[in-house]
Amino acid sequence: MEIQKSKITFGEVAVAIGESGGDIVATDVIHSAKDSAIRDITVHIPDDSNSRLLDRLSSLDGLKVINVSDRTFLVHLGGKIEIQARMPVKNREDLSHVYTPGVAKVCKAIHQDENKAFSLTIKRNTVAIISDGTAVLGLGDIGPFAAMPVMEGKAMLFKQLAGVDAFPICLQTKDTEEIIRTVKNMSPGFGGINLEDISSPRCFEIEERLKRELDIPVFHDDQHGTAVVMLAGLLNALKIVGKRMEDIKVVVVGIGAAGVACSKMMLAAGVSNLIAVDRQGAIAAGEEYANPMWQWLADHSNPYRSKGSLSEVLEDADVFVGLSGPGVLKVEDLKKMARDPIVFAMANPEPEIEPEAAEPYVRVMATGRSDYPNQINNVLCFPGIFRGALECRARTINERMKLAAAEAIASTVGAEELNEQYIIPSVFHEEVVVKVRAAVIQAAIETGVARRIPRDFR
Amino acid sequence: MEIQKSKITFGEVAVAIGESGGDIVATDVIHSAKDSAIRDITVHIPDDSNSRLLDRLSSLDGLKVINVSDRTFLVHLGGKIEIQARMPVKNREDLSHVYTPGVAKVCKAIHQDENKAFSLTIKRNTVAIISDGTAVLGLGDIGPFAAMPVMEGKAMLFKQLAGVDAFPICLQTKDTEEIIRTVKNMSPGFGGINLEDISSPRCFEIEERLKRELDIPVFHDDQHGTAVVMLAGLLNALKIVGKRMEDIKVVVVGIGAAGVACSKMMLAAGVSNLIAVDRQGAIAAGEEYANPMWQWLADHSNPYRSKGSLSEVLEDADVFVGLSGPGVLKVEDLKKMARDPIVFAMANPEPEIEPEAAEPYVRVMATGRSDYPNQINNVLCFPGIFRGALECRARTINERMKLAAAEAIASTVGAEELNEQYIIPSVFHEEVVVKVRAAVIQAAIETGVARRIPRDFR
Repeated sequence: MEIQKSKITFGEVAVAIGESGGDIVATDVIHSAKDSAIRDITVHIPDDSNSRLLDRLSSLDGLKVINVSDRTFLVHLGGKIEIQARMPVKNREDLSHVYTPGVAKVCKAIHQDENKAFSLTIKRNTVAIISDGTAVLGLGDIGPFAAMPVMEGKAMLFKQLAGVDAFPICLQTKDTEEIIRTVKNMSPGFGGINLEDISSPRCFEIEERLKRELDIPVFHDDQHGTAVVMLAGLLNALKIVGKRMEDIKVVVVGIGAAGVACSKMMLAAGVSNLIAVDRQGAIAAGEEYANPMWQWLADHSNPYRSKGSLSEVLEDADVFVGLSGPGVLKVEDLKKMARDPIVFAMANPEPEIEPEAAEPYVRVMATGRSDYPNQINNVLCFPGIFRGALECRARTINERMKLAAAEAIASTVGAEELNEQYIIPSVFHEEVVVKVRAAVIQAAIETGVARRIPRDFR
Repeated sequence: MEIQKSKITFGEVAVAIGESGGDIVATDVIHSAKDSAIRDITVHIPDDSNSRLLDRLSSLDGLKVINVSDRTFLVHLGGKIEIQARMPVKNREDLSHVYTPGVAKVCKAIHQDENKAFSLTIKRNTVAIISDGTAVLGLGDIGPFAAMPVMEGKAMLFKQLAGVDAFPICLQTKDTEEIIRTVKNMSPGFGGINLEDISSPRCFEIEERLKRELDIPVFHDDQHGTAVVMLAGLLNALKIVGKRMEDIKVVVVGIGAAGVACSKMMLAAGVSNLIAVDRQGAIAAGEEYANPMWQWLADHSNPYRSKGSLSEVLEDADVFVGLSGPGVLKVEDLKKMARDPIVFAMANPEPEIEPEAAEPYVRVMATGRSDYPNQINNVLCFPGIFRGALECRARTINERMKLAAAEAIASTVGAEELNEQYIIPSVFHEEVVVKVRAAVIQAAIETGVARRIPRDFR
């Protein structure tokens, strides 16, 4: 900003910033003349107060705002990832090894034995992050260009947390068949496919078909990442309340991609009395459902064929799992649940019930948010699960591997640390990737999908 | 190798290596016991003598070869490139900027204005290297898995020489329409498409269609990279012999992807008397050709409608350009050419005529090989041309930009340096990328395809 010293003092500017909700973090004088100064001011401010602050500053006589930049935008300039050579090419000798003519013999070796692509190319450690941008965060269908920053962020986390090279590819098509074909066509260089933010119900068929038609792991993170981490939390929550997976009654609300995956995961983990609820009420056998996933749930859950609204089926439930929207769960509903209610209110960014309102009536609560305890965050799952799958050259990521990953995540919270506020480790907990990797490799070997036995498993 | 000291000495082993054509570079004793030793020996050896050496060593009594590794294979282990985060993610604060929740506002900004993808995502600096593996080096159709090492090497050079982030994607399809669709579908995250090693004639349609249907540069390097560097060499060769582009007679042999591109490039640069020759002889107007590119050449070159074999049309030619195979050009043919013959014998790995045989009869000779003077190497072109195109957000790479790149490459050989053995700079000449970048940006601005004016051009 440029300040005309005769008209306004820096002190007055600072007061205006404070009154608009801003907190001055740093200030630099860029240029100072007799009657004016140019200052660079860094302000911490809640996102929603931005325009209020700018309006206030613009109204001040003698002050001109020259430029506004936002730290989040600054870190995104030019993108967040880059490609690096793993060794330098400084001279003709280097060139002849990594490129022509030397590279020809490496090509020939792979041509003779395609499996060598796993050792002699980036396939060994590289995952494609694929999205069509139709279900990005809570933003919905924002398209492939706008989805890139999320996928780049994911690629950063893959590398930083687990050393996995992941490259984001956002697709200019929403057609199921077209997406399947495109991913298959571009798959040879990759050791795994991470599907991301593809809307339901297309995501089910895309994942199912790609799993069947490719011999590398295909993993829709929105479904299975969420399900694995949720199950990890549930495993620990049940220890606190002293109940067993086999005995509990679970109600799941919001039967989209993640809701279906969480339901299947819990069924695989031993839950039998699980009731999935959509806007029309409990899904039960005997009804006809257009969505094949709902039909599957009707046939495989709700053994007592309970019917009715969420509020009705919550009677005596031990666990509530929400992947729907804000306000879906009421305090009165909580009061109907069995003793020591466990609530996973994972709607983003607003949970199904406000944690503050729920607090007096629940024993354990988890959300999708980082500003409350027990955040169910996929970041706990995808780096380690792919690290393990790549290292053992798994053909797929199967149910056993996902269960093993959930148990590994749960196990990073020690018995002495475990409590209502801490059923899930921090995403930066250094044991998470190590334990998930090992558990996933072990399960892959046991289920016969590993094509290589890593050294520490021999 | 393990050496039994009682049976053989290291000196005897060294003699055997030398007699098999190997040159010992280094030796380490890994383990030494009373009667045996394990040594790690590094040997320089011509590729074709490898098995001879191993046979010889295996025949020696008291010596056991434990393991053989090849330096070229060693540098390829695990692939040659990796993905790096451009900034660390060390804590929740970092995470909230590069990933959720902060990333949402960056996504929204791009959703509102798609052009922001160029500044806020990797699109700004990222090129896809696309191949179907059908025409890799001199190896032919080796498929997408075996093509990866070449594409990875190319990605290394993009980064090392020009700071361009390039990611290799090899396709599991050879179908023209399928390739076009796949590349279009995956294009949103990229600022340019480098097509590579796609066989003729499919490469023409694939490039043409993608150029028309995408608004980012699409460049088939085998065609245009070769053509640009060849033209750079020709510009300098003509200075040496004192002839003008307008006056020369050029004969091009081998009308595949690169031959067509070289022909078009020379026509665009001012050559008028150009004769393209296929296996049936000179291509001339009045004949019918199934391949549309040949028809185009028939209609746009060979103004005197010369007919006949290569040997016949070479009479009085000033320049020979070969992209065919070994032995195509004879010494007798050279003798028929005009004074100071210029010969570009670019067949790989064996030129159309052996440089040693041609030497007495040519004034300037260039090949595709690094072990002779004047190597026509695409590496001189693609890094700088994409660097320039990305920086000015060019919609395409047009003829003017390619001509400008050729002139820039030629200009890096100063008047005082220019001679018959040095018409083309080294691929490591540090001015090449700088000059090509600037020339390409200037041409893009002048032809109206630049969407951004870089700072140094304002």
